[in-house]
Amino acid sequence: MNESDDESEPADSTTATAPTTAETACFEAGIKFGTLYHQFAGTPVAPESAPSLARAMEASIENQPHCVDVTVDVRTDVLESELAGSAADYTELTGRFLEVEIVVNYEGREVVTQMAMEDGYPLMKVVSVSGRDADD
Amino acid sequence: MNESDDESEPADSTTATAPTTAETACFEAGIKFGTLYHQFAGTPVAPESAPSLARAMEASIENQPHCVDVTVDVRTDVLESELAGSAADYTELTGRFLEVEIVVNYEGREVVTQMAMEDGYPLMKVVSVSGRDADD
Amino acid sequence: MNESDDESEPADSTTATAPTTAETACFEAGIKFGTLYHQFAGTPVAPESAPSLARAMEASIENQPHCVDVTVDVRTDVLESELAGSAADYTELTGRFLEVEIVVNYEGREVVTQMAMEDGYPLMKVVSVSGRDADD
Amino acid sequence: MNESDDESEPADSTTATAPTTAETACFEAGIKFGTLYHQFAGTPVAPESAPSLARAMEASIENQPHCVDVTVDVRTDVLESELAGSAADYTELTGRFLEVEIVVNYEGREVVTQMAMEDGYPLMKVVSVSGRDADD
Repeated sequence: MNESDDESEPADSTTATAPTTAETACFEAGIKFGTLYHQFAGTPVAPESAPSLARAMEASIENQPHCVDVTVDVRTDVLESELAGSAADYTELTGRFLEVEIVVNYEGREVVTQMAMEDGYPLMKVVSVSGRDADD
Repeated sequence: MNESDDESEPADSTTATAPTTAETACFEAGIKFGTLYHQFAGTPVAPESAPSLARAMEASIENQPHCVDVTVDVRTDVLESELAGSAADYTELTGRFLEVEIVVNYEGREVVTQMAMEDGYPLMKVVSVSGRDADD
Repeated sequence: MNESDDESEPADSTTATAPTTAETACFEAGIKFGTLYHQFAGTPVAPESAPSLARAMEASIENQPHCVDVTVDVRTDVLESELAGSAADYTELTGRFLEVEIVVNYEGREVVTQMAMEDGYPLMKVVSVSGRDADD
Repeated sequence: MNESDDESEPADSTTATAPTTAETACFEAGIKFGTLYHQFAGTPVAPESAPSLARAMEASIENQPHCVDVTVDVRTDVLESELAGSAADYTELTGRFLEVEIVVNYEGREVVTQMAMEDGYPLMKVVSVSGRDADD
């Protein structure tokens, strides 16, 4: 038994290879989510100004490459109930006020992603991938 | 001549005192400008998405205390000519694409401030202060 | 006494004039505070990474014109107690984790400003102005 | 010919399915890159303050889930040459001053990603994926 035999099995599972096209599509979708969240988190927001902010978030992220569609819902009810218990009439945008869906299409692979509250945290996740071929 | 004599004159002019109301109004105006610029600089922007971004910038900053009016003009001509010489169809928002006016009213002192390009840099400045009384 | 008499005095006091040098110094200080807050709010932060973030905030804002000194303290105790009651081991930087002092010197006027929690909100304020002359 | 026949072939390639573990790992890596870029783009930066900013970027992004390692190099030569041709002694952080490597490990899949200038633009890409198993 020689060294190359010893290593052959781990090598199968751990050898670093180039990403598949579908994996790259998911990477692209992640970029859009990180951008959306960290560009706009901290923006002063109130129920009245939330719709214009949501539209600007959608339109700006849709500029990014391979981005097919962005839907931002500001959860006005959560925003209003938080402000009701406060002396201020606006707050800073953060994940618990947001529901977001982003669809990316990269070389035919369509990735649907969402952010919503789960266990008290805004969770970003891939909902589905379609359009894979045999090489993905 | 002793040390306290030496220092007496500078002491007259450098004694730290509380700000006047008009000085506080100018401080408040500066906060709005720093917020607007650094919240939104870096946002992906194209001529088509610029108007929604400008409206969101206005509405979000107007939420801040003492802020009376915010007017954001994205200089679409500059944006278009920069994109014309590039392979991309969007870019990142930065000062050379913006003209901004912010009006703050703090306890009756109205401060008008602007940002526009000057010598190749986006310069923020106080245009005028009104409503001062004898204590300002 | 007629209406025009009634209004003559307010007219005197509301005429818009150029800012004094001390007012401009306060505007400059406000810009630094808005920049610091909205550039860095939302940054992922944990007790271990807080010091490097605080140093970067200080060094980056000190680059801005007329900025003499920036001191950022991340209130690690508040950060730790918030994380203790959570499933996460990091959170987003926001005002309740920060104490900041910024000193600006604009044409000889030194403005000392601070941000600290007051009534549950991070309040930015001018502590003192020194170096004014007769025209301020 | 019935409807199901008509649709059978496109259905094969476009059926949306859950992401593989490796695809989710790539999504996570993309989130880190979007976060890093859009949290810190726009920060005032000079050659002297660049190292502290780079360290803060690394430490803050490493807080995020599944993030194994972040390496940020500010290309000081590019920064210096840009400032040499300018009247300012600082500028805003943007992609052409940065080289970044981010390594994510999600459920055993290690994703190595990089950002560097390519054709005049900062390009984020997946360099390699390792640790896949038969289900990826």
